[in-house]
Amino acid sequence: MNLPLGFRYSAVYAGIRKVEKPDLALIVSDPPAQAAAVFTTNRVQAAPVIVARRHLEISGGVARAALINAGNANCATRTGARVALQTARAAARVLGCKPEHVLPASTGVIGVELDPRLILDHLDGLAAGLSPARFLDAADAILTTDLVRKVAFAEAQGARIAGMTKGSGMIHPNMATTLAFVVTDAEVPVRRLCAHLKASAGRSYNRLSVDGDMSTNDMLLVMANGSSGRRVAREHFQRALDEVCQSLAKQIARDGEGAKKFIEIRVEGAAGERAAAQIARSIANSPLVKTAIAGSDPNWGRILAAAGYSGVPFDPSRVDIFLQRVRVCRGGLAAPFDEAALKQALDSSGVEIRFVIRGGGAGTAVFWTCDLTHGYIDINASYRT
Amino acid sequence: MNLPLGFRYSAVYAGIRKVEKPDLALIVSDPPAQAAAVFTTNRVQAAPVIVARRHLEISGGVARAALINAGNANCATRTGARVALQTARAAARVLGCKPEHVLPASTGVIGVELDPRLILDHLDGLAAGLSPARFLDAADAILTTDLVRKVAFAEAQGARIAGMTKGSGMIHPNMATTLAFVVTDAEVPVRRLCAHLKASAGRSYNRLSVDGDMSTNDMLLVMANGSSGRRVAREHFQRALDEVCQSLAKQIARDGEGAKKFIEIRVEGAAGERAAAQIARSIANSPLVKTAIAGSDPNWGRILAAAGYSGVPFDPSRVDIFLQRVRVCRGGLAAPFDEAALKQALDSSGVEIRFVIRGGGAGTAVFWTCDLTHGYIDINASYRT
Repeated sequence: MNLPLGFRYSAVYAGIRKVEKPDLALIVSDPPAQAAAVFTTNRVQAAPVIVARRHLEISGGVARAALINAGNANCATRTGARVALQTARAAARVLGCKPEHVLPASTGVIGVELDPRLILDHLDGLAAGLSPARFLDAADAILTTDLVRKVAFAEAQGARIAGMTKGSGMIHPNMATTLAFVVTDAEVPVRRLCAHLKASAGRSYNRLSVDGDMSTNDMLLVMANGSSGRRVAREHFQRALDEVCQSLAKQIARDGEGAKKFIEIRVEGAAGERAAAQIARSIANSPLVKTAIAGSDPNWGRILAAAGYSGVPFDPSRVDIFLQRVRVCRGGLAAPFDEAALKQALDSSGVEIRFVIRGGGAGTAVFWTCDLTHGYIDINASYRT
Repeated sequence: MNLPLGFRYSAVYAGIRKVEKPDLALIVSDPPAQAAAVFTTNRVQAAPVIVARRHLEISGGVARAALINAGNANCATRTGARVALQTARAAARVLGCKPEHVLPASTGVIGVELDPRLILDHLDGLAAGLSPARFLDAADAILTTDLVRKVAFAEAQGARIAGMTKGSGMIHPNMATTLAFVVTDAEVPVRRLCAHLKASAGRSYNRLSVDGDMSTNDMLLVMANGSSGRRVAREHFQRALDEVCQSLAKQIARDGEGAKKFIEIRVEGAAGERAAAQIARSIANSPLVKTAIAGSDPNWGRILAAAGYSGVPFDPSRVDIFLQRVRVCRGGLAAPFDEAALKQALDSSGVEIRFVIRGGGAGTAVFWTCDLTHGYIDINASYRT
């Protein structure tokens, strides 16, 4: 864990979630950082999303801190905007920076008023606890139904990138999904940072689905504070940022609510990358595919059917499908395979679905999801109450 | 059960499905019937869908019979087209009609070769068993994972309409979903019949979702043989056909795989019917909404979020949401309600979600789905093997 220079982290239990574990996190960049973010495209947006976007506009893409709470989405609430603004301003006072340099983020239940005092009363303690070493404490505090902590690290020409994320349900591939905070000590001007982030999001968070439900609170933020003094070459920075974002996205799929299996879907031979991703997304979102994988059932007909309703035109008679590298469908028809051996190979925590259009275009895409099990229903039939 | 005149039905066990219960059905109109159908829009289409569509084109919308098998979709198979054609031709010989007057339909597993002899060997027995009274036997033979038989009846100015349908999974609202056969003894010219069917499908099967997976075999067929000698006024026929199709669609949602609860979603105040249906579909397809209803959890935030990603623009601050007629969200915010009482009201086999955009347009839509439970996963994790 080689952390970027010039960042500090803190976390406390503020009493926002019922279970007594840290639910309020602060990430601070000591020098003002260049900041870029992508947000949910849901028509219903949580107050912190609206406030964070506005703050980035006002500051022209400069940030000092992200203030994140779990346990309450601060969405569809009477006092939402006031709470988000008030807590961000209070944090700015404690940190001695401008209010617009603090970006609020929330995750949790929708439609329940968030008591601002829970946050305000803990800001001093939160600030007092700030330390460059408490990265993992902050990463733990932003989790909700997650079973495991999700962090990733990379290096590029001497600069460091570190990311933390949360989320296992309400994950749909459209713009950023869920919450993610990436920090780097590379020197990157804000315009380039925005372009890098957009490209990375397209190859990571936008290639991820757990249940097809898009959240109201999604935000993927990157802060680059230049503390390493390194100006990293574009392609190197892009590759390292991709590495961190893809690792985080895959960790979300792996920890999808109730998931027993991580599923990687590779589509090849589509007309373009966009078409390939559309087919992959359709397969990834199919409950029938996801339950078949849960049952280690090599039911490739469901994969073909899901691709068929993706909206992308293709000739089914040119499709090969591979499960765990075993060809189960050739030219749109059943291919002979050892059923018992494949069933055993599918009894794995990682499943690869490869969908190939023979003689097609150069469009390829990779997409991540997880199987659909009883656990998903157990978690979501009683989340709120 | 007041059946249309001039139709006969039969069913046998042909050994296509593993469980020994009838899996081959024949519906015969004694006078040639005007016939209209809507089919799946999946890019992957089963052989019987392709053959039935072609037969309707050749005949100009005239049919004598539908030959339906359960247990095998006859889709993505090497011999699919040959089997569908061969069995339809053989049935035509037995019935003494033109091949194109027989419409094949199949439902079941995808990608497994369908042995034509299973059907050919049973055609004589099937024809010998034809009787105007065996409507329910045919309705039973087309079922797959269904727990209950699905039939509906209506009358219009002295003419009768009867329908049977199947299906509880792989149900997605796009064109006709699943298999449905509607017979009527009204006199309706084929052009009018097509228009009536399209309108009814739009208000019934296209307003239905179980799991969002669109099948490769969907077909909704209506045959009008004029045996009653009644030319029914358009609006009366449309109303009766709507009644039958809507009843059938609702029965599918009620019997959705693993479903414990039928869910009716009403959207009001959208710009138009199309926008209203789009919002309703988004709510109906949300696994988080469906699991919340399974758990009797009045988690209206998920309903608002699902509407928010429907792609339809609306102002969240003008939204009211009602569950079982209790307002749980007013103007996009939590409305006070008796949590215990509502939880009890949600412990019901029927749940109504009403989503109202206040001061909005005149667009309304009703949509049907079911809750998402362990049962769906149990059924689908081991369907094929």
